[in-house]
Amino acid sequence: MNSHEQPIGIFDSGIGGLTVFKEVRSLLPGENIIYLGDTARVPYGTRSPETVMRYSFECTEFLLNQSIKLLVVACNTVSAVSLDEICKRVSIPVTGVIGPGARAAASATKNKKIGIIGTETTIKSSAYSKAIRAMGHDIEVHGVACPLFVPLVEEGWTEGAIARMVVERYLAEIKDNGADTLLLGCTHYPLLKKVIQEVMGDVRLVDSAIETALAVKQLLVEKKMTAMNSAAGTSRFFVTDSPEKFISVGERFLETKIGTIEKIQL
Amino acid sequence: MNSHEQPIGIFDSGIGGLTVFKEVRSLLPGENIIYLGDTARVPYGTRSPETVMRYSFECTEFLLNQSIKLLVVACNTVSAVSLDEICKRVSIPVTGVIGPGARAAASATKNKKIGIIGTETTIKSSAYSKAIRAMGHDIEVHGVACPLFVPLVEEGWTEGAIARMVVERYLAEIKDNGADTLLLGCTHYPLLKKVIQEVMGDVRLVDSAIETALAVKQLLVEKKMTAMNSAAGTSRFFVTDSPEKFISVGERFLETKIGTIEKIQL
Repeated sequence: MNSHEQPIGIFDSGIGGLTVFKEVRSLLPGENIIYLGDTARVPYGTRSPETVMRYSFECTEFLLNQSIKLLVVACNTVSAVSLDEICKRVSIPVTGVIGPGARAAASATKNKKIGIIGTETTIKSSAYSKAIRAMGHDIEVHGVACPLFVPLVEEGWTEGAIARMVVERYLAEIKDNGADTLLLGCTHYPLLKKVIQEVMGDVRLVDSAIETALAVKQLLVEKKMTAMNSAAGTSRFFVTDSPEKFISVGERFLETKIGTIEKIQL
Repeated sequence: MNSHEQPIGIFDSGIGGLTVFKEVRSLLPGENIIYLGDTARVPYGTRSPETVMRYSFECTEFLLNQSIKLLVVACNTVSAVSLDEICKRVSIPVTGVIGPGARAAASATKNKKIGIIGTETTIKSSAYSKAIRAMGHDIEVHGVACPLFVPLVEEGWTEGAIARMVVERYLAEIKDNGADTLLLGCTHYPLLKKVIQEVMGDVRLVDSAIETALAVKQLLVEKKMTAMNSAAGTSRFFVTDSPEKFISVGERFLETKIGTIEKIQL
């Protein structure tokens, strides 16, 4: 198997990374993609950094054994905590979700005020603010953790009065702060995009999943690794626990059937 | 150390079991209590039965090594999935949270209609309905999973419009069904009791945490194991990850300071 035909590997702590999968699949229809959701140990967001690091190495190892040509860390927590360590350990190109999201937000803002929303761990890590500052931009960053968004999305309550009130409550601070750009720093949040946009008015939303897919495409082009066949690429899904739940919630994320799914132990 | 002085061991997948700890502490102030929260692997509710079983044996093992005289499985998921197996493996008295809750609800209902709320796994397991039927009662049981209650409680949003709307949405079915008794089948739910009572009107709420504490007292009396010293008992807390979060959320559960906490690996 030459590098063109090798699959892209994507992993996340659970289901959320499917928003990244969806964008990569849509942007690169000819690529073979393997998705791993570590559903036995989700969520990573509440674990200690050492634990997250250990789990992420195990996910990486599994995907490397599937001969992937490029690794997508579709998990904000892992991208914040152990992306550098993963990059040191592997010889293939790697992208997380934070770099692409931060770059896009930094170039989108005009008034130099960016709001960032994510899980408690992502916000506490200041990973997005650090990424933006590392680009040398003089931008004011305001982060807010929104712990109820993930369960809302997994429950399918992405519209209606409850979603709206929860979104309003979490985003009030960022609205008051006058940011013109809001970065969705969690892979679940694109499913709440409609309500978030309604609440935020004409603020520009940056979706890390879309930006990550664009980064994947760019990396493949740079490294001359793009799939050469004109046929549709294959998709394989692996989970470490509860495949039924992954399918039922995952199909809402993908807006399509998942088909078969393989349960593995890491 | 004779059996009177030995501690009571309580474990849960995380923080929720603190509602049980709180009731045991309040009912039995002279007892020494050890609490273990398996915060590295919370939540158990989304894991497969085999995984839950394995985790629960590890928690039990740890507490046995602390020379406990009685074991409280303060986790609905474990009580539903592996209580029988735990009882087979240990020689000390054991109580879960399902039996005491089910018994109390069964004797409270007058119109023979009980509503049960809990996590998805607890409701799917039908553990409470089975427990009620095993008592030979001819009672109609209506279970509803409320996945948003746990994050609401952990966020501290236990009052106000959002809590009220979420509670109304989940409980509508049970209200329509005309149950006169509602069993709180998840250790987090007592923190939402006020809103739940408002929404349910004059329906009788049964709190598994309180019922479990009563069961613990009864077991100690039966086995002649009650603490003999008149001084206040000691409390020790162990977690497998993120002690800071356990303290900040846990103190809201207990309405008192937690003090020291020990991090262990299972």
